[in-house]
Amino acid sequence: MMVIMKSDYSKQDLDGILRRLEEVGLRGHPIIGVERTVIAVVGRIYPELGDELETMPGVADTVPISAPYKLASRETKPESTVVKIGSVEVGAGKTAIIAGPCAVESEEQLMATARAVKEAGANLLRGGAFKPRTSPYSFRGLEVEGLKLLAQAREETGLPFTTEVMSVRDVEQVAKYADILQIGARNAQNFILLEEAGKTGKPVLLKRGLASTIEDWLLAAEYVLNTGNHNVMLCERGIRTFETATRNTVDINAIPLVKQISHLPVVIDPSHGTGKWSLVTPVALAGIAAGADAVIVEVHPNPDHALSDGAQSLNFQRFRELMEQSAVVAQAVGRPLLSATTPARA
Amino acid sequence: MMVIMKSDYSKQDLDGILRRLEEVGLRGHPIIGVERTVIAVVGRIYPELGDELETMPGVADTVPISAPYKLASRETKPESTVVKIGSVEVGAGKTAIIAGPCAVESEEQLMATARAVKEAGANLLRGGAFKPRTSPYSFRGLEVEGLKLLAQAREETGLPFTTEVMSVRDVEQVAKYADILQIGARNAQNFILLEEAGKTGKPVLLKRGLASTIEDWLLAAEYVLNTGNHNVMLCERGIRTFETATRNTVDINAIPLVKQISHLPVVIDPSHGTGKWSLVTPVALAGIAAGADAVIVEVHPNPDHALSDGAQSLNFQRFRELMEQSAVVAQAVGRPLLSATTPARA
Amino acid sequence: MMVIMKSDYSKQDLDGILRRLEEVGLRGHPIIGVERTVIAVVGRIYPELGDELETMPGVADTVPISAPYKLASRETKPESTVVKIGSVEVGAGKTAIIAGPCAVESEEQLMATARAVKEAGANLLRGGAFKPRTSPYSFRGLEVEGLKLLAQAREETGLPFTTEVMSVRDVEQVAKYADILQIGARNAQNFILLEEAGKTGKPVLLKRGLASTIEDWLLAAEYVLNTGNHNVMLCERGIRTFETATRNTVDINAIPLVKQISHLPVVIDPSHGTGKWSLVTPVALAGIAAGADAVIVEVHPNPDHALSDGAQSLNFQRFRELMEQSAVVAQAVGRPLLSATTPARA
Amino acid sequence: MMVIMKSDYSKQDLDGILRRLEEVGLRGHPIIGVERTVIAVVGRIYPELGDELETMPGVADTVPISAPYKLASRETKPESTVVKIGSVEVGAGKTAIIAGPCAVESEEQLMATARAVKEAGANLLRGGAFKPRTSPYSFRGLEVEGLKLLAQAREETGLPFTTEVMSVRDVEQVAKYADILQIGARNAQNFILLEEAGKTGKPVLLKRGLASTIEDWLLAAEYVLNTGNHNVMLCERGIRTFETATRNTVDINAIPLVKQISHLPVVIDPSHGTGKWSLVTPVALAGIAAGADAVIVEVHPNPDHALSDGAQSLNFQRFRELMEQSAVVAQAVGRPLLSATTPARA
Repeated sequence: MMVIMKSDYSKQDLDGILRRLEEVGLRGHPIIGVERTVIAVVGRIYPELGDELETMPGVADTVPISAPYKLASRETKPESTVVKIGSVEVGAGKTAIIAGPCAVESEEQLMATARAVKEAGANLLRGGAFKPRTSPYSFRGLEVEGLKLLAQAREETGLPFTTEVMSVRDVEQVAKYADILQIGARNAQNFILLEEAGKTGKPVLLKRGLASTIEDWLLAAEYVLNTGNHNVMLCERGIRTFETATRNTVDINAIPLVKQISHLPVVIDPSHGTGKWSLVTPVALAGIAAGADAVIVEVHPNPDHALSDGAQSLNFQRFRELMEQSAVVAQAVGRPLLSATTPARA
Repeated sequence: MMVIMKSDYSKQDLDGILRRLEEVGLRGHPIIGVERTVIAVVGRIYPELGDELETMPGVADTVPISAPYKLASRETKPESTVVKIGSVEVGAGKTAIIAGPCAVESEEQLMATARAVKEAGANLLRGGAFKPRTSPYSFRGLEVEGLKLLAQAREETGLPFTTEVMSVRDVEQVAKYADILQIGARNAQNFILLEEAGKTGKPVLLKRGLASTIEDWLLAAEYVLNTGNHNVMLCERGIRTFETATRNTVDINAIPLVKQISHLPVVIDPSHGTGKWSLVTPVALAGIAAGADAVIVEVHPNPDHALSDGAQSLNFQRFRELMEQSAVVAQAVGRPLLSATTPARA
Repeated sequence: MMVIMKSDYSKQDLDGILRRLEEVGLRGHPIIGVERTVIAVVGRIYPELGDELETMPGVADTVPISAPYKLASRETKPESTVVKIGSVEVGAGKTAIIAGPCAVESEEQLMATARAVKEAGANLLRGGAFKPRTSPYSFRGLEVEGLKLLAQAREETGLPFTTEVMSVRDVEQVAKYADILQIGARNAQNFILLEEAGKTGKPVLLKRGLASTIEDWLLAAEYVLNTGNHNVMLCERGIRTFETATRNTVDINAIPLVKQISHLPVVIDPSHGTGKWSLVTPVALAGIAAGADAVIVEVHPNPDHALSDGAQSLNFQRFRELMEQSAVVAQAVGRPLLSATTPARA
Repeated sequence: MMVIMKSDYSKQDLDGILRRLEEVGLRGHPIIGVERTVIAVVGRIYPELGDELETMPGVADTVPISAPYKLASRETKPESTVVKIGSVEVGAGKTAIIAGPCAVESEEQLMATARAVKEAGANLLRGGAFKPRTSPYSFRGLEVEGLKLLAQAREETGLPFTTEVMSVRDVEQVAKYADILQIGARNAQNFILLEEAGKTGKPVLLKRGLASTIEDWLLAAEYVLNTGNHNVMLCERGIRTFETATRNTVDINAIPLVKQISHLPVVIDPSHGTGKWSLVTPVALAGIAAGADAVIVEVHPNPDHALSDGAQSLNFQRFRELMEQSAVVAQAVGRPLLSATTPARA
């Protein structure tokens, strides 16, 4: 950490800070510059230090030097993490496709979708049983009944599934059924939920919050990793910006950046990231080209009758087109689709 | 709701939409404009309708007309809501001051602060027992021990207190001690927590999320109101923007706007809203001038030794100055401090 | 346009609005809904109408229905615009590469770069002669001398060039030399400059402003189109968001969306869009995969000695790698590199 | 500046950087920390240094320590700048009110407004002759005719006036008439315009850009100050955020913060800052309470017939109410209205 002194600081101020640093077991090296004096702080910095020093006389500002996340950092663990869900490996160099309805609505809707995405080459199933909804008057999911239907779809298709867990009170139950616990964007900083999900040992698919910086997102992952569970996948699903022509703004830069600074696999969600089905395929391809390890996409038999997020869901035909185009782009960037070894379409 | 047709829609497309609206018990009135055809939809619109219609052929877009929140709207309830916490009334025309440490750290720290803020004229005490922290390595609060100390401080000073509840698993326990349940910015869309907090019947202080629009915020309030609990206070604590010179950007416009469109009381939090103690008093005054019903502010005996958010905490002397200046501005705008009737400082 | 009435509007209010609409040659159709009354306005709406109506008694809000841009809209002109710069066609189905230094610094630097990018397969040269700099103390370009060097590089390599024009006072001079007039992000709403650039008849490369919505951006294009100059290319170069890990946030969604709603070609700038050379290639590939008609990228012989934006510039070797990878991805999405017909590397 | 090394940097990397710093006349002090090695750079840093170093091997990042603006900084000039426009002093401890129509539309409209605001106690007149409009199809002002009318209004009322200059080609003409040259938000980083406006020697009212950080804004001021013209007023008029319920988001934090870090006077514009007349008065009061030196507000005889920004304009009666309430709040915070010495309303 660097402590930046005000231009009119006194000798006394400087001594006060050096003494304070000593009190807490750190060392300060003052550097007298032409315009500024700064103090370089050496030792194991703790998170509150900046706040504490900023209130001391003579201090203009503090600047952290080390990233606050450790376990999520590629500096700590240079080799890429591979998350295994049954026989599906995310992060091992091939591109995985996760597909299914936004919300599980009925046996018929789910089974039809599961079969269709399986046939088109998807590797994992997605489907919401517990749905976080901005309005209390919206459909909130089939809950446990939805989990059972997802398990039934897995049984039939062989596809492991991911589903959102919205609350600590549901962690145990969701973990009983699901292969991957998904943390939604609105719970991206629900720290207790992150820890409880981590403790189950199940893979966690962690969506980026609408207002989460990349640092916040990696710190959220840190909550899971800190429980000893290293099976974390980071999902870019768009952030909130001033642009309202699309539902969110996919931060495409985040994909290669996170791959560089963290060892965790990165997933792109073009459905929530755009909110418009006509943008889903191009943005999925962009994500693959930028280096995503997986794509998660919403598919529905009849998007115009969906109980949730119909506007951003692909129908079966459009999903097959997405698969075809993804296969070509993934091949082009040297990370072929996982399903490409056993060709998806005979 | 308005359905906006594409410029090249067909008669069939139009008929399809009118039929679909009939199916779901609504009526559509097509209006053929010079550039655009739109369909005005009349009837009880449900939240998913826009999504459903947007995927139908010929539709360019849908535009909601009614606000999606009802119980929080001033159109539903024109008279302002007054939230009563013991003898303290928030929203009844006088300005309340809520003050205390960011986190409860020790009996000594809390008692000293509670006495100081009481003496300076505060009406309610604040203090964190369960602390949401961006990093898992930060101090996370004294938990139940903190609640007990807050109850002890209430006993001694007579000040009711507000404290954050971070998780559904803690709702019952927090409600046993606290006078107000506080929902933090990071849980602003933790919908299950909102409902559980609402069900306790205790007043709820609902912070705006970092990425919550005003509509999102009122919909979050709707989750609480929908449980039958009408004691909701809305707290503007800054949103996340591109400006990083301050920790957050206080949306001062939101204060008069929310007072116009909702009947709920509005509270300003200049401590989290700015992140810098030197900005706390001017922004508190701005909030009062803009029409806030209350101010919530962080106070600590030794901000440079605080375990949480020291940089934005006022020491006792600075808090007394805030109270003095607030008293004058609150008087100027015709909403004197609640404590002004029984002068705070003899 | 839709006029949304307050819930407590009076008959008189409604009549007043209908009368006002008649005054200005429009017709209003009131629609009495369950919760809301709205008035659909039919006729040629002018831009100020919303503002005027919003101040009238009984009006809650107005909602525009038609997009405010016309000439830039694909509804007005369904076929895609192809911009021709010499023999280079942007928007005709192949992907163009524009490359060169951020700023022209010297004959040696520019010639070396021009040769290198030509050899690697670039179709157009870029280089700044007039540089907009956030700080008045930064290098601001060689100005006319820079233009002359760019013309010399064109002479030698055959590559037409694009360069920024910062001010109306320089339009004539820049147009004398340049093949494409570039409008920078900070001038994206400098409306007089847009018109003067348009009047030269030269192709205009219009960067999106840091705070420009897609609608603002298309309206800026409208200023150029409105002069009768239809050679406009839209350049996505990142917008300003709360994320500071990268210099800007590339709005990848904007690429397919703008291609759908406008007929103008779209260019991606991964150099300014990310601010980090290590992200330039993946984000360029993402742009191509998402449907961009061209990529504009900064290349410098010695990025660590660049007078401007070295951190985001590729050296020659890295640019060659970008070209190779772009060729594969562009091919995969069916829009091969323009230079691919005459293979860049023997 | 601090240079932060990667965790796996080599001795060679470190030596390379130290050598490079020497080359450019600076000194580097390496500090070997527990987690990180950083190099503190001492000497006169130039703006491009960070970019240059970031591309060198072994460097993870660079962190500037000194603010990049100098002339605008309170560290350079501790005493507050007072800008004098005739007998009106902005920044000398009293609060000035600037009022008038968004756009000058006719002699009748302007004269009526000028008289009304003068009578209510305004100190300066505002009015747009050249209007920047998002759409090319909107009313763009009376141009020179508007300037003449403003001069006539000054003649009659004695109020000096401010008006926007949109382009370098108009600077001379606008400066011939106007008392203050106003730079609009969309030209906030039109650096050539800033310099040309500065060179006239006239006071400059510099609006903050929609995407300008406080640092960008002070650097824009630096362009004016650097011409030797020290009469700069900074105008907070709202920034662009995700919130669309208001036209912009007034950054109220910026007012006290800029007063602390800069010596320049700060003006609040609640009209553009909110876009809704019903929010103008509360936000004006908030600005005064937060420490603004002046308020600039739009007033129109018939807002519902305004050719520009009617929705945010006050009529005469509402402006008188704003003046009355401002007088009370300004008095309360110890910075009474300038006009308060000679009571506005007999």
